[in-house]
Amino acid sequence: MIAGVSEPEQQSSFDLDGPAFRAHEGGKVEVRATKPLRDKDDLSLLYTPGVADVCLAIAEDPTLSRRFTARNNTVAVVSDGTAVLGLGDIGPLGAMPVMEGKAVLFKHFAGVDAIPICLESGSVDELVDAVERLAPSFGGINLEDISAPRCFDIERKLQERLDIPVFHDDQHGTAIVALAGLINACRVTDRQMSSLRVVVAGAGAAGVAVTKLFELAGVRDIVVTDSRGIIEPGRRDLVAHKQDLAATTNPRRLRGTLADALVDADVYVGVSGGQVPEEQVATMADGCFIFAMANPTPEVHPDLAHKYAAIVATGRSDYPNQINNVLAFPGIFRGALDAGGVQISEEMKLAAARAIADLVEEPRPDLIVPPVFQEGVAEAVAAAVAAHAG
Amino acid sequence: MIAGVSEPEQQSSFDLDGPAFRAHEGGKVEVRATKPLRDKDDLSLLYTPGVADVCLAIAEDPTLSRRFTARNNTVAVVSDGTAVLGLGDIGPLGAMPVMEGKAVLFKHFAGVDAIPICLESGSVDELVDAVERLAPSFGGINLEDISAPRCFDIERKLQERLDIPVFHDDQHGTAIVALAGLINACRVTDRQMSSLRVVVAGAGAAGVAVTKLFELAGVRDIVVTDSRGIIEPGRRDLVAHKQDLAATTNPRRLRGTLADALVDADVYVGVSGGQVPEEQVATMADGCFIFAMANPTPEVHPDLAHKYAAIVATGRSDYPNQINNVLAFPGIFRGALDAGGVQISEEMKLAAARAIADLVEEPRPDLIVPPVFQEGVAEAVAAAVAAHAG
Repeated sequence: MIAGVSEPEQQSSFDLDGPAFRAHEGGKVEVRATKPLRDKDDLSLLYTPGVADVCLAIAEDPTLSRRFTARNNTVAVVSDGTAVLGLGDIGPLGAMPVMEGKAVLFKHFAGVDAIPICLESGSVDELVDAVERLAPSFGGINLEDISAPRCFDIERKLQERLDIPVFHDDQHGTAIVALAGLINACRVTDRQMSSLRVVVAGAGAAGVAVTKLFELAGVRDIVVTDSRGIIEPGRRDLVAHKQDLAATTNPRRLRGTLADALVDADVYVGVSGGQVPEEQVATMADGCFIFAMANPTPEVHPDLAHKYAAIVATGRSDYPNQINNVLAFPGIFRGALDAGGVQISEEMKLAAARAIADLVEEPRPDLIVPPVFQEGVAEAVAAAVAAHAG
Repeated sequence: MIAGVSEPEQQSSFDLDGPAFRAHEGGKVEVRATKPLRDKDDLSLLYTPGVADVCLAIAEDPTLSRRFTARNNTVAVVSDGTAVLGLGDIGPLGAMPVMEGKAVLFKHFAGVDAIPICLESGSVDELVDAVERLAPSFGGINLEDISAPRCFDIERKLQERLDIPVFHDDQHGTAIVALAGLINACRVTDRQMSSLRVVVAGAGAAGVAVTKLFELAGVRDIVVTDSRGIIEPGRRDLVAHKQDLAATTNPRRLRGTLADALVDADVYVGVSGGQVPEEQVATMADGCFIFAMANPTPEVHPDLAHKYAAIVATGRSDYPNQINNVLAFPGIFRGALDAGGVQISEEMKLAAARAIADLVEEPRPDLIVPPVFQEGVAEAVAAAVAAHAG
């Protein structure tokens, strides 16, 4: 199936015969019929002339499209490739393997049919217009790997214009699973969320969403940092979404750098990349939690983090406590679709985080979130989401 | 999986328990993984961290997207629902069952993964912009059921802007299969294409494409009619694409109605709907061919047509000689994708028509095109198309 001209034009810098490349040969997803096509009779039911009445019935009553097409089980995984993993702006073609991977996960964990849609990038309005135009084909829109701050406006505008769930996973999936981890970290250490001093290092998509969801869950003292230091109202270099953070976080009005924020902090949430030096980690409060979620290189190496922290989590699969979005997004969409394709509210996100936390029957320092392959995670998340619909 | 709110809000005018509706319950397509996801090791190959190098390799050399994603086997079936079957402008939701059906056919006949993309309608430029923006996700674009004359400009602009095949099936699929039928009708009756007087009734998408492809195949005398009669340079009511037809067809400069055009005509190609009265059919030349392709009601009923014609074809599956696009489009895209995602040229369309005609080993009056389920059609068409690439 692979065409002759697909041979690379120049020598690749990568080992194209390595295991990951072999696993990607020909891509990772396909489209299949769910109904048999054996003969003319099948053809005349599934296509003309049989299809005509189905089309007309839907045109008469658009809600029937949820029943007689695959739409209500189908989610577009939409990216413009401007913020792919930690790789940056590598464009829509480069982003495609991630979106295909996401589609594999959607189906495996929640039976959701997900279509990778990688768009040529453009202005916020251009992307919103494009997604709005193709929305009739889908039961939901999972936004993915779109750079901040554009991602905030794109998500908000699409939520305003569309009547189907629109969910930027880099924001909310991360926030939901991080909150699940925080809930169980508090259980393990007998702490109250309202008493925690939390530092969120990173004011991009994930940092903003983590901050908002933690606040909704009852965290009162959050200090957010970006590459220039603590976000606070005195700063004159803040774009809009950081001005919002400055107004709603940092109740003790700290100023300075991440190092200043970390002194006596109870929780470090890293969604920024980079490295936190050991001497700064050492200033955190006794019994602190370190969620160093940058991938593939955590901001604090787990071995180092354990010297100072009661609870350590990362984004990596080869250490305990992997804060992995896949615990959230399949069930989130499953629940929203099962509830009739509803918008995903803040309450649903909170309920999803609690459901994920509750799936760990006996939380331990090295088990604050369920393993990715634990049975029943998406089902529990979906039930929690659907229970908060309508 | 079907949500509670999918129940129709009012009583449908249709029998939602009928066989076609039952065949459409839940839709007709799904997305599946082609690679196993069994454990953490698989996950780290198919998703992070393994996917990162694949993304970067593609960003370095975009041609690798054809090898390491599903893109080169994936076609978007794009419609805005403005001209669905013979049903008219029923909108994107109403069009979806047709596009899903098309996806079923693409996979069944040619192993092509096709994604139904139903777009909110808009201006030509709005639709072109939307399709251009999502093109990086696909190896080809099959345009479908878009109203004329917008479909001509949309197809042309997309072909100019994209480096992947863009093919409006209502035009070219119809033309290719009709030409295959004409080739074998000539063989059966020992006629030369260059000597035929052809009437194409209908100057929309299919009529224009049939005319152009027939001319390319050697037909010299084509008269095209629309609802107001014969298209000729004296008419002052012609939109652009009909002015083009007026300039290039009708060498005998006929004027008048379809009835005038049919007198002594050798071939009637109906792509217009409506009914041709028997007294007009009776004026056609001895040994004529009648291709009455409107669905579900042919412009001339086959029983009536046989009273006057040597060869009769329709679009219906319950009569011989079904002129069905499914003989063409799966193989057309299979061939274009196999050749590296090349544009579909006029020569390829001609070669496809000849390949389809040649699949009928012994043409007879009731066998001028292969049956839809004949083995090997898409393969032969694909080979013919690929042979004319580059």
